[in-house]
Amino acid sequence: MAVIGQQSLYQDLKKALSGTGIIVAAGDQGLVEAASRPVDITMAGIMGAAGLRPTLAAVKLGNRVALANKECLVAAGSLFMREVDKYDTELLPVDSEHSAIFQALDDSSKRNIDKIILTASGGPFRTFSLQQLQHVTPAQALKHPNWSMGRKISIDSATMMNKGLELIEALYLFPVAAEQLDIVIHPQSIIHSMVSYIDGSVIAQMGAPDMRTPIAYSLSWPERLKTPVEQLDLAKIASLSFESPDETRFSAIKLARQAMLQGGNTPTIMNAANEIAVESFLDGKLAFLEISSFCERVIEAVQAQMGDKSPLSVEEVLEIDHSTRIMAQSSIIM
Amino acid sequence: MAVIGQQSLYQDLKKALSGTGIIVAAGDQGLVEAASRPVDITMAGIMGAAGLRPTLAAVKLGNRVALANKECLVAAGSLFMREVDKYDTELLPVDSEHSAIFQALDDSSKRNIDKIILTASGGPFRTFSLQQLQHVTPAQALKHPNWSMGRKISIDSATMMNKGLELIEALYLFPVAAEQLDIVIHPQSIIHSMVSYIDGSVIAQMGAPDMRTPIAYSLSWPERLKTPVEQLDLAKIASLSFESPDETRFSAIKLARQAMLQGGNTPTIMNAANEIAVESFLDGKLAFLEISSFCERVIEAVQAQMGDKSPLSVEEVLEIDHSTRIMAQSSIIM
Repeated sequence: MAVIGQQSLYQDLKKALSGTGIIVAAGDQGLVEAASRPVDITMAGIMGAAGLRPTLAAVKLGNRVALANKECLVAAGSLFMREVDKYDTELLPVDSEHSAIFQALDDSSKRNIDKIILTASGGPFRTFSLQQLQHVTPAQALKHPNWSMGRKISIDSATMMNKGLELIEALYLFPVAAEQLDIVIHPQSIIHSMVSYIDGSVIAQMGAPDMRTPIAYSLSWPERLKTPVEQLDLAKIASLSFESPDETRFSAIKLARQAMLQGGNTPTIMNAANEIAVESFLDGKLAFLEISSFCERVIEAVQAQMGDKSPLSVEEVLEIDHSTRIMAQSSIIM
Repeated sequence: MAVIGQQSLYQDLKKALSGTGIIVAAGDQGLVEAASRPVDITMAGIMGAAGLRPTLAAVKLGNRVALANKECLVAAGSLFMREVDKYDTELLPVDSEHSAIFQALDDSSKRNIDKIILTASGGPFRTFSLQQLQHVTPAQALKHPNWSMGRKISIDSATMMNKGLELIEALYLFPVAAEQLDIVIHPQSIIHSMVSYIDGSVIAQMGAPDMRTPIAYSLSWPERLKTPVEQLDLAKIASLSFESPDETRFSAIKLARQAMLQGGNTPTIMNAANEIAVESFLDGKLAFLEISSFCERVIEAVQAQMGDKSPLSVEEVLEIDHSTRIMAQSSIIM
């Protein structure tokens, strides 16, 4: 079955696949239908809020869901995890950081966690001063030093909002409190994240920055698949470096941490506001350093209208997401 | 029960403990008796060949043995592991490297190992030239950069024979072939060892160089104990470096690797020869660079006399150990 999200392209897809025997559908309902079919593993790779309903449909199958969509956890974390628990679904993270943490945990170790430490490359502007950050262009921000990624996630990596969103994801995925989540800058992106334990032990997952490893793991767990990924040669890499994140230059981390601590609908609003902010930055309508302060203002404005309560259903999540986008868009235009 | 190895000190110990109700014994038989008493966990911490019989006695209890003695694996690996299997004993390594590897493995991951990579600090002479190594003194060799250790193990660390012995231990402890065992120099001793998998993933165990962490783990596994060990702060450490081991300057690694591949009684002989070589170096009777070539000559001489077959009993191991020491000692005197 092949489904295209945009309803208007249904006829094109149907024509292109005619005679193949492949079932064709389109639109949100088509995506949910596809995700509801009995399967062994669902790879939830639809980006944005659009991935919410189909991924939840897959969760209800009670099989394995390999999760590459951020919104399920960032925008709808509580209700998403409630469904995962209810249907006893195997939720496997695909993000390299969360896959690393998953690999550094086992059933018994979960009781003995001191901290979860997410590594961050620091993005293309790690060494830039505040002054320099004022003038960075979309073209500069799209050049990530280690990973080859889409436009939205490249900008999130440059602002480090990406890492902020990952903190929130980690809070829902793993048995820790917000205070147990840390970030360390590690420019080489070789250590993908780690877990420190109460006995002083730290378990880290490392490897070349290549998404095929975490993708393979989400499919093969608890086994592993042979991949064509280059084996790590630390003597060749020679040095791994680490530094503390600077939340003054990269205020998105601070904002995301506040949103995580505040809870309720704040992460949902922040996530939608950030999407509009990134688009606006790419369109030249917002400066790089305005991205996170813009999100902050949007959160305030939206909560002034609809309060800050946790969304209790997907409908409520989508309603918050939708309203936030409208308010954010209109404030960009004005 | 308290046992002193040296038979001649039995009366002194008995006097010192009189009135305490503690049972007192001495000598090899006393050690075996103590190790045979029903316990939950035996910490096998007797150094050298003297640890062999008591540790095997503990193995036969079929409970947990936390292993800090090297000889059980290096000198008697095959027969020791046969007993561990036979009695279904939980064998927990205490060495920081092997504890790290143990922590980087789980039941399912064992089938998917690419390599086991032992880290080595490189010892106090890591950056010395061959020329400089010719003149190093016992005092220089006893100063280890990261770990506070006994004299014998400090010299083994300086020659890197220590790492060679650890290769052999790893071969018996973990489900890998000799070709899957690698060494990487990592001067900071923060990563204690790692396991690389077929999917490109590497799991590493890290921490401050503090033996309390692996000791605690050998007692608490599969749980962890809260220890007073300082939590790792990678941003403070700032940099971890790696290089390939140089088997020209540190020929003991090469020798140990050969012994491991050759098998039979070679590791048993090498281990005993090395003990005499280290003593002789500390006594000023052997130059630093002669340690490993001396061991090589002793292996040849002993095998010319008694062949190279694997010892089949503890008696045979002790006989090989004893004969080697006598031949090695006499060749030092001559």
